[in-house]
Amino acid sequence: MTSWIAGVDVGGGGIRVQVRTDDVGLKARDRGPVPRIAGAIDTSRLCGRIGELINSVVESGARPAFERIAVGLTGMPGLVRPAELADQLRLHVKTSSVVVASDSVTTHLGALGGEAGCVVSAGTGAIALGTDHRSTWNRADGWGYLLGDEGGGGWIGTQGIRAALRFHDRRDGGSEALLRKVEHQFGGVSAALAAIYNSPSPIHSAATLAPLVADAAHEDDPVARAIWVEAGRLLAESAFAAARGLPQTYSWGGRLFDAGELLLGPFRDEVLKRSPDAEIRPPQGQAADGALLLAARGIPAGAIAEPYVHEFA
Amino acid sequence: MTSWIAGVDVGGGGIRVQVRTDDVGLKARDRGPVPRIAGAIDTSRLCGRIGELINSVVESGARPAFERIAVGLTGMPGLVRPAELADQLRLHVKTSSVVVASDSVTTHLGALGGEAGCVVSAGTGAIALGTDHRSTWNRADGWGYLLGDEGGGGWIGTQGIRAALRFHDRRDGGSEALLRKVEHQFGGVSAALAAIYNSPSPIHSAATLAPLVADAAHEDDPVARAIWVEAGRLLAESAFAAARGLPQTYSWGGRLFDAGELLLGPFRDEVLKRSPDAEIRPPQGQAADGALLLAARGIPAGAIAEPYVHEFA
Repeated sequence: MTSWIAGVDVGGGGIRVQVRTDDVGLKARDRGPVPRIAGAIDTSRLCGRIGELINSVVESGARPAFERIAVGLTGMPGLVRPAELADQLRLHVKTSSVVVASDSVTTHLGALGGEAGCVVSAGTGAIALGTDHRSTWNRADGWGYLLGDEGGGGWIGTQGIRAALRFHDRRDGGSEALLRKVEHQFGGVSAALAAIYNSPSPIHSAATLAPLVADAAHEDDPVARAIWVEAGRLLAESAFAAARGLPQTYSWGGRLFDAGELLLGPFRDEVLKRSPDAEIRPPQGQAADGALLLAARGIPAGAIAEPYVHEFA
Repeated sequence: MTSWIAGVDVGGGGIRVQVRTDDVGLKARDRGPVPRIAGAIDTSRLCGRIGELINSVVESGARPAFERIAVGLTGMPGLVRPAELADQLRLHVKTSSVVVASDSVTTHLGALGGEAGCVVSAGTGAIALGTDHRSTWNRADGWGYLLGDEGGGGWIGTQGIRAALRFHDRRDGGSEALLRKVEHQFGGVSAALAAIYNSPSPIHSAATLAPLVADAAHEDDPVARAIWVEAGRLLAESAFAAARGLPQTYSWGGRLFDAGELLLGPFRDEVLKRSPDAEIRPPQGQAADGALLLAARGIPAGAIAEPYVHEFA
């Protein structure tokens, strides 16, 4: 009998689904934002979209019974009730088991292929997770735009605008290059501030300026370069804190690392400064790959995983 | 004939009104928050409250015709349309002229009694204004919780919680004293984060923790002390930038300076480091005193004041 599993990554860029049977792997994605209701994640609408994607890759008529579906998503613990998500998902897909995990876990599984170590994820926010997937679960940062997420995309964008405004005000530490880029993008300083503060999510708007700060850095603006160096250092600091008691194997995930060596260079330097024997590995896969791996192996017997991973069989 | 003027300060702690005739000064205040509608200031409700306060201090029956009423308030330029506020105020009080000013201007007038120089205001936010009230108007910072307000109350509070979370995560730069205080105040780290992020204004909630960071500093926690030193330095940096081309006379306003020497010491040190001949004066008065002075003297003929001050005669 054919065995079906599915891994689902729910992120800022949309939903990615991977379905696997004994001999074939299928993929689908959409690009909608994570549906929200009253600040929390709208699990009902979310599961409707997940169900639609999973069913879209399976031949019509053949609705298989899945062995296990694993969903990794942001906002855990806190913004989502895992049991509710599992119940909602069963309205759309037949499955023996649902695993609901923090996206820091699926990113970790994707990056290190299930091995113990530490993975730092940086998108708009930033979090480091060090785990052996059994008894050790160390988290560092991931505390949100106001109180943490140091070195993430929102942090990069806000530091870039702060440097632009410092130049505008003739304060120290300003960057003329960043001011010109911000003015060019928005048509002026007031327009930039209005666009960011009046957007539905100011920190996401600020994070979209990370590539602009990268451009200025590539053009050798020293202030912009220093922002990326500091971001790499902060991410490494979180990674090192989360790696205590674990093999010193490090990797990364998240779209901020698309900046390449601009971020990776300082990250690597700082990890090796703190942990000279560390092995720093490029990620094997993304969060969706990690979710598929989690669907394949489930939670090992005897492992403590909550509140990072929950299984509903 | 008796001449009447009124000065009004609209701030986070409520509305303060000062009314003066030839021979008598009267005061009133309320403690409601600034009324808002769709993100902007609700001028209709605000003017109702201002009118009520002004009329409350005048003998009943005798509704005088004011010569000039000056209102200083936050969010200018941007969150308020001065002409609309002037029109709304006339529905409640009879006056020949209405002056609408940024509270950075009324704080400046209150602190330096109308003289040229630079005044830094720090409440939840932080802004420095250097002006001679005629042709020079230099602003530094005041760019809001995400992109500026460096050294303000929101900045102090968030730095305090960041340091608490750094200790919690075992990252560098953490403060155990601050973690214990945050846990004690909220019952735990998760509860603290939920209380702040779920409040109607996270940055105001964070700013309410400034006294907690002050307590830790007074108990000689080095991380908490360093936060106040850096705040004083940042405020001085903004003040120095805004003081260019003006007499090097500095003062301050806003509730964050209730912290006293903890903030003033580093502020003074940094101003004198940058401008060794600076005169640093304790404020003569508060923003309400500045508003009364503005009502008394209006905008000098030939002065350029917009967008900081508008007069509607």
